[in-house]
Amino acid sequence: QCNLIGWWENELGSKMHVSTVDSQGNFSGEYHTAVSSAQKPIKPSPLIGSQHLDEDGQCTFGFTINWKFSDSTAVFVGQCFAGDSEDEVLQTSWLLREKVDSLHSDWKATR
Amino acid sequence: QCNLIGWWENELGSKMHVSTVDSQGNFSGEYHTAVSSAQKPIKPSPLIGSQHLDEDGQCTFGFTINWKFSDSTAVFVGQCFAGDSEDEVLQTSWLLREKVDSLHSDWKATR
Amino acid sequence: QCNLIGWWENELGSKMHVSTVDSQGNFSGEYHTAVSSAQKPIKPSPLIGSQHLDEDGQCTFGFTINWKFSDSTAVFVGQCFAGDSEDEVLQTSWLLREKVDSLHSDWKATR
Amino acid sequence: QCNLIGWWENELGSKMHVSTVDSQGNFSGEYHTAVSSAQKPIKPSPLIGSQHLDEDGQCTFGFTINWKFSDSTAVFVGQCFAGDSEDEVLQTSWLLREKVDSLHSDWKATR
Repeated sequence: QCNLIGWWENELGSKMHVSTVDSQGNFSGEYHTAVSSAQKPIKPSPLIGSQHLDEDGQCTFGFTINWKFSDSTAVFVGQCFAGDSEDEVLQTSWLLREKVDSLHSDWKATR
Repeated sequence: QCNLIGWWENELGSKMHVSTVDSQGNFSGEYHTAVSSAQKPIKPSPLIGSQHLDEDGQCTFGFTINWKFSDSTAVFVGQCFAGDSEDEVLQTSWLLREKVDSLHSDWKATR
Repeated sequence: QCNLIGWWENELGSKMHVSTVDSQGNFSGEYHTAVSSAQKPIKPSPLIGSQHLDEDGQCTFGFTINWKFSDSTAVFVGQCFAGDSEDEVLQTSWLLREKVDSLHSDWKATR
Repeated sequence: QCNLIGWWENELGSKMHVSTVDSQGNFSGEYHTAVSSAQKPIKPSPLIGSQHLDEDGQCTFGFTINWKFSDSTAVFVGQCFAGDSEDEVLQTSWLLREKVDSLHSDWKATR
């Protein structure tokens, strides 16, 4: 079964720690990003999300990061791939929303 | 100040209800989608997310929807635009992750 | 049948002119953007792309804009919706690639 | 200087051949995809696009693929990374537009 609890690291060197998953599949943890487009120093930031509780170890999941060093929010969505003999791998896609001043700048707020 | 609590409706007719926001900015609620790419009948599905608690009513936020009628997960990220006289508007972008059988199909799992 | 030749305008006030479509569906034209994230003044920029030549006026298409005022490139992909009595509408999605210095900054280059 | 002419292969095994680049940076070629979400057998498909002609070998570019085995269109946007001693690498992002019946299905047409 897919178990997100623990430490994960991506190819950029960012690390996340999932500390708890409850009976609904809701989880929380902390994200330590290695990269940033903000001016201020990077700080560990809380994440909160939800996973499916499938029997087959291939669950989809998503989570939100509330950045503590910028007025931005990131979301990730992905799937766990766990084989018998292989390590678990998470495949994810993300969106980063930066705060903009007005609706006129909304078109460039998300990358 | 930006307050996500209440009912929101998008241009497709999907509705979401945010019931609580705690002192960290974490919130939960329910999403009633009007559209689906799944075979099974649509069901209201729980959402969980996080918002910045800015003074200026322009906060960014994100949330995850754990679909109860398919093995998929959606994430939304966006910003609240609240003027003095105007209604609040949420501008969002989203990703929908569908479960795939293997890493070889990962390229087409997200829309 | 779907015919892209002519002037199109989007909700931001950007305008594009498609001048020619050849027998393969390849087309060219000029894009006049109303918004920019670059420092330099906006200039009209050439576009080149390709459309399907379906019988039913619902063709998909895509094009590339080679910005003349920044080291960036944009791509659009979309579909034409043409009814009997209604005007033709183009629904599109886009990606904007900004030049970055190194592979380490690649993660933030596209919005 | 960045030179797109030649054969390129991605991590999924898809290959593309860029045959010509003109003095404006416009190029054409053929894309041989290794993966497909369509029913029909895969066929090589024409591509057309445009690149910046920078001095530094780090140009951004984009192109459109007009799929010959489905009513879909794909666009890629990316950047060339060329070092002195290393091989050239292309970093790209893409969107795939599938034809849908009506505006009501537009939300799910792009991945």
